[in-house]
Amino acid sequence: MRNFEYYNPTRIVFGKGTIAKLAELIPADARPLLLYGGGSIKKNGVYDQVIAALEEFHVEEFGGIEPNPRYETCMKAVEKVIAEKCDFLLAVGGGSVLDACKFIAAATEFEGDDPWDILSKWVPVEAAVPLGAVLTLPATGSEMNAGSVISRDSTNEKLFFGSDLVRPVFSILDPETTYSLPPIQTANGIVDAFVHVVEQYATFPGPNPLQDRQAEAILKTLIEEGPKALTNPTDYEVRANIMWCATNALNGWLSLGVPADWAAHVIGHELTVLYGVDHGTSLAIIEPGVWEHQRDRKREKLIHYAERIWDVTEGSDDERVSQAINKTEKFFQSLGIGTRLSDHNIPEGACEIVAKRLADRDMKIGEHADLGEDAVKEILRLRI
Amino acid sequence: MRNFEYYNPTRIVFGKGTIAKLAELIPADARPLLLYGGGSIKKNGVYDQVIAALEEFHVEEFGGIEPNPRYETCMKAVEKVIAEKCDFLLAVGGGSVLDACKFIAAATEFEGDDPWDILSKWVPVEAAVPLGAVLTLPATGSEMNAGSVISRDSTNEKLFFGSDLVRPVFSILDPETTYSLPPIQTANGIVDAFVHVVEQYATFPGPNPLQDRQAEAILKTLIEEGPKALTNPTDYEVRANIMWCATNALNGWLSLGVPADWAAHVIGHELTVLYGVDHGTSLAIIEPGVWEHQRDRKREKLIHYAERIWDVTEGSDDERVSQAINKTEKFFQSLGIGTRLSDHNIPEGACEIVAKRLADRDMKIGEHADLGEDAVKEILRLRI
Repeated sequence: MRNFEYYNPTRIVFGKGTIAKLAELIPADARPLLLYGGGSIKKNGVYDQVIAALEEFHVEEFGGIEPNPRYETCMKAVEKVIAEKCDFLLAVGGGSVLDACKFIAAATEFEGDDPWDILSKWVPVEAAVPLGAVLTLPATGSEMNAGSVISRDSTNEKLFFGSDLVRPVFSILDPETTYSLPPIQTANGIVDAFVHVVEQYATFPGPNPLQDRQAEAILKTLIEEGPKALTNPTDYEVRANIMWCATNALNGWLSLGVPADWAAHVIGHELTVLYGVDHGTSLAIIEPGVWEHQRDRKREKLIHYAERIWDVTEGSDDERVSQAINKTEKFFQSLGIGTRLSDHNIPEGACEIVAKRLADRDMKIGEHADLGEDAVKEILRLRI
Repeated sequence: MRNFEYYNPTRIVFGKGTIAKLAELIPADARPLLLYGGGSIKKNGVYDQVIAALEEFHVEEFGGIEPNPRYETCMKAVEKVIAEKCDFLLAVGGGSVLDACKFIAAATEFEGDDPWDILSKWVPVEAAVPLGAVLTLPATGSEMNAGSVISRDSTNEKLFFGSDLVRPVFSILDPETTYSLPPIQTANGIVDAFVHVVEQYATFPGPNPLQDRQAEAILKTLIEEGPKALTNPTDYEVRANIMWCATNALNGWLSLGVPADWAAHVIGHELTVLYGVDHGTSLAIIEPGVWEHQRDRKREKLIHYAERIWDVTEGSDDERVSQAINKTEKFFQSLGIGTRLSDHNIPEGACEIVAKRLADRDMKIGEHADLGEDAVKEILRLRI
C-alpha cells in the first residue's frame, strides 16, 4: 500500500426530509447565496423546501448554472456574491452546480489578476467563501470531495482544480429529490459513479485487497440497483443506494494507497467541451476504449474484475479480458447510453482533434502517466 | 436505508516513516503532553521517532496507561496537563492509550463536579484539549472515531462516552510500528476489528447492499491477511492491510443507515472488568454465544454471511447458521484465542454475575434493544 493522507470534514446529512435541517447547518448570522441550475428544482419542490427551511435568513439567488458549468457564468455569480455581500454559498443541484459553487467560492476570494489561473495554472486557493450543498443528482461525488471541473467558452477548455478550502461544510442528500430526474440523467449518474470507481481500480494489481473489495462493493451495487432506478424511479431504497454509491465512489476513500487511471475522464472532458456530449456518456464511450487499448497492461486487474464483478471464470485470459470490456459496455448500453462516437454524431475527425489538444497541453495520462497523442488517437478510433 | 449524519474530520496520515510528519501536524506553538502505555514504545523505537520529530517542541510525558485504561490513572494525567499547562495531547500507543487520551482531553476541560459523570451520566462534553495520535496497535478504531471506553477500579465499571470534541485532529498510522507486537496482541486486534464489523452487520436484513458489501470487504480481508501477520510479522503489506481494516471497521462508516447490535461488546466489557480478560478475547468468547442465542432472529443475515464470507451454499438454513457460527469461532481459535469462558478460568458463576450487573443498569441490548438479564445469562452459559 502506498503512503497516503486523508482529510474529509464534510458533514453528510442523508435521508428523507433532511432539507428541513438547513437552518441548523448554515451559520445563524449568514447571508446565503442560493445557487442552482436550469430550474428543475422549482418544478420538483426542492426549491420550495429550501426556501421554507431558510425562512429566517435573507437569501439571495443565482440560477441558470448550466451542465458543465461555464467560467463566464461563474464570474457573474462572483459579482453577485460581492455586490450582495453574501458570506455563504448554498449549491442546490447536481455536480455541475456544486462544481460551479466551489469555483465561485474560490474566485470570490482570489487576490491575483485572473481567477482562471486557479484552473489553468493551479494557483493555490488561499481563501474561499464557505459553502454547503443540497444534492439532487447522484453522480459526481462533488458533495464530499474537494474537486471541481469548470469549462470556458472562449478557449474551449474544461479544467479541474481542487482545494480543501472548497469542500462543502455540509451536504444534504435526500434520495426523494432524485425521483423526478429524467431517465438519461439517472443513467448518466450511474455511469459516472461506476467509472469513478473503475478509474481507481482497473489499473495494475497491488497489495490492496481491502480497497479492491471496497471498489467492487460499489460496482456490484450499481449493477444491481441501477436498472431498478430506471424502471421504478420512485423506489426510495433504490434511489438511496444509488445516491450513497455515488458519494462513496468519489469521496477520495477508494484511491487511498492505490494507483489511479483517470484517462477516460481526461479524454471524455474533451468530448464534452467540443461536442457537447454529457459527462457520464463521454465516460461510457471512452472507458471501453482505454481498456481495449491497455488490455495487456491492465490484464491482471481486468481478469480479476471479470471474475469478481461479472462471474467470468472460464476462457483464456484474453477471452476474459474481452468479456470484462464487453459486459461493462453492455451494462452502460442497458441503461440507455450510446457507447460509440457515432451514436452521438461525433465525427471521426474527433480522434485526431482530441489527441492533438491533449498533446498541446503535454498531457501524459493513465496510471503509468505515459499515454500521449498516439495512444489517445487509437483509443478514440476504437470507439468510432 | 435509515437517515443518518456523518462527520469525521480526523486527518489520517498513513504509511512508512510518517511519524516524522508530527511536527507539521501539531500546532507550532503547542506545548504537547505525550501519553503512552507500558513502555513498549521505548523498546521498539517509536518513542525515539516521536521525540526526534518533536525536537522543536517542549514535550511533557505521562506513561503507564494500562490496557483497559483506568479512570484513576487518567485523572493523574489530568493533573499533569493542568500543572504543566499542556495544550495538546499526543497519544502514542493502541486503543487504550487513545481512549485514555480522549477522556483526559475532556476531563481537563470539564466544569462540573466530577468528570466521571461524562461516562456514567453522559454529561455532554462542552470543551476538550485538542489531541492527535500515533497508532501502534490496530484494533479499536479509536484513531478515527469519537468514542472512548474507560474503566474504574473503585466501582468495577467499564463505561463508554463519545463526543466530536475528542476526535483526534490527526492520526499517524505507520504499519512498521506493529512489527514488534506480541502475537496475542496482533490476534486480539484482528478479532476486535472483525467483531466491530459484525456488530454492525450480523443483525437483520435491510435494503443496504452497499453497507453489507463494505462490511464483507473488511471481513474477507481480515480472514485472508490476519493469519499472515502471525506467521510473518514483519510483512509490511500484511501489516498495512490489517491496520487499514481496523480503522475502516470502526470509523463510523459501516453503521451509516443500518441497525447495529453491540451485545458482544456490552457483555464482553463486563468480562474484562471482572476477570481481566483482553478486550478482543472477550469478544471472541461472547459473539458466538450471541449468534447462537439469537440464531432465529439473525437467521437471514447469518445465512447471507455464511455464503458471502465462508462460501457456505449447501445444507438446511439451520445447518448454514451453525456453520456461520462454527467457522467464525474456528477463525478466532486459529489466531490463538481461547473462545470459551473455561479457556480463561472464568467461573460458571460469571454468567449470573454479569447478567445481574447489566440488569442493575437496566441494560437492554442487541439490535432490538430487548436482551435483558435472562438472555445475557443464557448467552454466557452457551460459552462455558
